[in-house]
Amino acid sequence: MYILGIDTATKVCSVALAHDAEIIAEYTADAGTTHSQRLLPELDNLLNRAEVAKKDIDLVAVSMGPGSFTGLRIGLATAEAFAYARHTYLHGVDTLAALAYNCRFENILLSPVIDAQKGNYYQALYKWRGNKFVCVEPTMVVNVEQLFGRVGDNECLLMGECGKINNFPGNIKKAPENLLMPKAKSICALALRDFNSETDKRIFGLEPYYIRKSEAEELWEQRNR
Amino acid sequence: MYILGIDTATKVCSVALAHDAEIIAEYTADAGTTHSQRLLPELDNLLNRAEVAKKDIDLVAVSMGPGSFTGLRIGLATAEAFAYARHTYLHGVDTLAALAYNCRFENILLSPVIDAQKGNYYQALYKWRGNKFVCVEPTMVVNVEQLFGRVGDNECLLMGECGKINNFPGNIKKAPENLLMPKAKSICALALRDFNSETDKRIFGLEPYYIRKSEAEELWEQRNR
Repeated sequence: MYILGIDTATKVCSVALAHDAEIIAEYTADAGTTHSQRLLPELDNLLNRAEVAKKDIDLVAVSMGPGSFTGLRIGLATAEAFAYARHTYLHGVDTLAALAYNCRFENILLSPVIDAQKGNYYQALYKWRGNKFVCVEPTMVVNVEQLFGRVGDNECLLMGECGKINNFPGNIKKAPENLLMPKAKSICALALRDFNSETDKRIFGLEPYYIRKSEAEELWEQRNR
Repeated sequence: MYILGIDTATKVCSVALAHDAEIIAEYTADAGTTHSQRLLPELDNLLNRAEVAKKDIDLVAVSMGPGSFTGLRIGLATAEAFAYARHTYLHGVDTLAALAYNCRFENILLSPVIDAQKGNYYQALYKWRGNKFVCVEPTMVVNVEQLFGRVGDNECLLMGECGKINNFPGNIKKAPENLLMPKAKSICALALRDFNSETDKRIFGLEPYYIRKSEAEELWEQRNR
């Protein structure tokens, strides 16, 4: 099964192509231009480079958030329209899970975070237990104190949008630079693990997962209360 | 040539299918749910109803704004990904032009408007001269007084997001209810008129046309000045 993976949940644009568990190619760029300009050309480069035709894609996997409102909308609209136009399956992957999945270190807590603005973060906790990748604590919106509190005294790696977090307790470290940000190969891998041809048949109506509303929505609600 | 038209620039979701100048079907809904949930199912219904296969589409035409930030992003990402996945041409159409094109009344000024918030409007002026549809004045962001001023003493029809505009001068009238809001058949018609197989080959990098920044961008700039 050929899987096309897309992650535009952060300012990083990452696309990957996998054949079952084998990653054929991945393009990841943090280059300042917008996802709307970059995503399709990157997908096109990827498929050309891999010499895989669009018609051979069986499954489109896409990062569902939490993350940037507009980034997620663009990624999801692109993934849905591609899946629709080529009649492939579509599968959504949690952005935090994919971030932690990048870091295959056993017996250590993995804490992916995404900036939720105003000093808050989306955080979930994961672990690799042998070959099994498991969610230990679900996604919550927390401030930095609560974020450290959920980790407790456990040895822990932090990854994702953690650039503004400082003054770590001794048991918490940042993941290596090359594992900090989203990689679409993890989107492909988690989609392969969780894909179900029965439940994933519906290709419409996937909703990105923000938890927090966009600032524009919050402003609108305040004004129209 | 089969043309698929998409307009999600306002809260109306409109899709249409044309075979050259003949409109085969158009679905237009103003139903409260979001474009991200509704656009692809509407496209699917349209093609099924018309019994035209996705592979037969030659050109995807999409409303480029001005209009809703998120609506435009979703419409454009969807149009681009469909065009990419099926290797069709892609053509962008000005939303105001399409609004005026709906109203085929000769020798009268046509003033499409889109709400630009804070009492401002995107406005352009068009006219039908015989079979020719021409732009008389380009798009500008104006307040209501300026909007009336650009019309002058000419007989004029107003259309688009003009629900909040009142106290019209006697020479300005609102368009009939059924011609007020976007119709994707006008997107198809203008795309057919302006399509050029030389210059429209590039299917990447169309940028929606807002003129005003989104509220979130403005806030961000204020804070980071």
